Amino acid sequence: MSSVQPGRLLGLGVGPGDPELITVKALRLLQSAPVVAYFVAKGKKGNAFGIIEQHLTPAQQQVPLVYPVTTEALAPPLDYESVIADFYDTVADQLALHLDAGRDVAVICEGDPFFYGSYMYLHDRLATRYPAEVVPGVCSMLGGAAVLGVPLVYRNQSLCVLSGVLPEDELKRRLADAEAAVIMKLGRNFDKVRRVLQQLGLAERALYVERATMANQRIVPIDEVEPMASPYFSLLVVPGQKWRG
Amino acid sequence: MSSVQPGRLLGLGVGPGDPELITVKALRLLQSAPVVAYFVAKGKKGNAFGIIEQHLTPAQQQVPLVYPVTTEALAPPLDYESVIADFYDTVADQLALHLDAGRDVAVICEGDPFFYGSYMYLHDRLATRYPAEVVPGVCSMLGGAAVLGVPLVYRNQSLCVLSGVLPEDELKRRLADAEAAVIMKLGRNFDKVRRVLQQLGLAERALYVERATMANQRIVPIDEVEPMASPYFSLLVVPGQKWRG
Repeated sequence: MSSVQPGRLLGLGVGPGDPELITVKALRLLQSAPVVAYFVAKGKKGNAFGIIEQHLTPAQQQVPLVYPVTTEALAPPLDYESVIADFYDTVADQLALHLDAGRDVAVICEGDPFFYGSYMYLHDRLATRYPAEVVPGVCSMLGGAAVLGVPLVYRNQSLCVLSGVLPEDELKRRLADAEAAVIMKLGRNFDKVRRVLQQLGLAERALYVERATMANQRIVPIDEVEPMASPYFSLLVVPGQKWRG
Repeated sequence: MSSVQPGRLLGLGVGPGDPELITVKALRLLQSAPVVAYFVAKGKKGNAFGIIEQHLTPAQQQVPLVYPVTTEALAPPLDYESVIADFYDTVADQLALHLDAGRDVAVICEGDPFFYGSYMYLHDRLATRYPAEVVPGVCSMLGGAAVLGVPLVYRNQSLCVLSGVLPEDELKRRLADAEAAVIMKLGRNFDKVRRVLQQLGLAERALYVERATMANQRIVPIDEVEPMASPYFSLLVVPGQKWRG
């Protein structure tokens, strides 16, 4: 083994959903990698995989990385943080076998690898031991603004990117101070987030989109969103106030 | 004229600098557009134009949009806001002639069109009158994180994107509250921003890159940056605290 040049770990951002929103670079590296890994929920095909499936050849080895849980709320004695950490440890070991054998491993990431992507947990475990290259991708918030047709931030405005899981008072405090904001990870947090936007007088400025740039994209006025039906891949945009420029 | 179908306004994000970081979609629309417009400083070639130049054909009409000023600090009676607003008005009228004649106009945007891009000022002026499509692109902050090799935001961390032109006390207040931050538009603001990071104890976590993903990219430890030599296309990243995941 000692004489084998180790493979490269490639974190490839493949964009927010529309397969054409992959970059030329990610596509080239994807097609050159003998091993292609992707995260996926149990029993699902995986959004990221769907984006790039058309480009794979039978010679490439596909490695689905199946999340062990589908929710962060686990029954004791299980806790999400240790279950997921064990999972990333195991996956890192699994990919290290390919890297040790000299095979490049492309890890496909929906959106951008370093913007809330699961890839970063593998990067933190492997990039100190193996050569790694990250190809940035169009993240969902930029895909969302594009399909909503609304500029996100003008001139010197600040942008605040928030997770919908934050407690209501923290959401409120951060949104009250934001010139422009994007709220991700809505799902079952939607109702809470909408309430905060209403309290702050931001609801009329806010725009909502589900699965931006994907084939089943849906744009809905925020007062018509059914809170319990809001998918994980939805986001709210509070665009900056127009500057005439 | 009345029977001519108007052309489409296309805002094409072409990525942060590496020509391979253009998306497949932006490349396709770029190559199909009879008119290609791009913003550029007087006497310069323009970064965005440099990214896509190789893909143009002689049949495509190139329209450089030359900024009338190179600084926001103008001698009275001139003021930046009205000079630049007049400029965007004039450019919008100029592009409208092509759209009226039925020609699609691709406006090339470094990074992403709706993330601090000049395109948005044309979009606000033209998208209500003409069909418009925006193709999101990889923005500089994602390009920066990728080449620095550092995850930006873990799990449910909030991200704050700030402009270096903000007053020192506002920078300090916003950075003190940020779990992760990106500071753009450094240039001559670098020294002020570094001082704030030092005061907040964030300087050791912060990473600096100039012209991320471009051929002349430069990564420098932040205490070695020459403040007056920091270019406009530089940024500071304060990554979120690692989460083991």
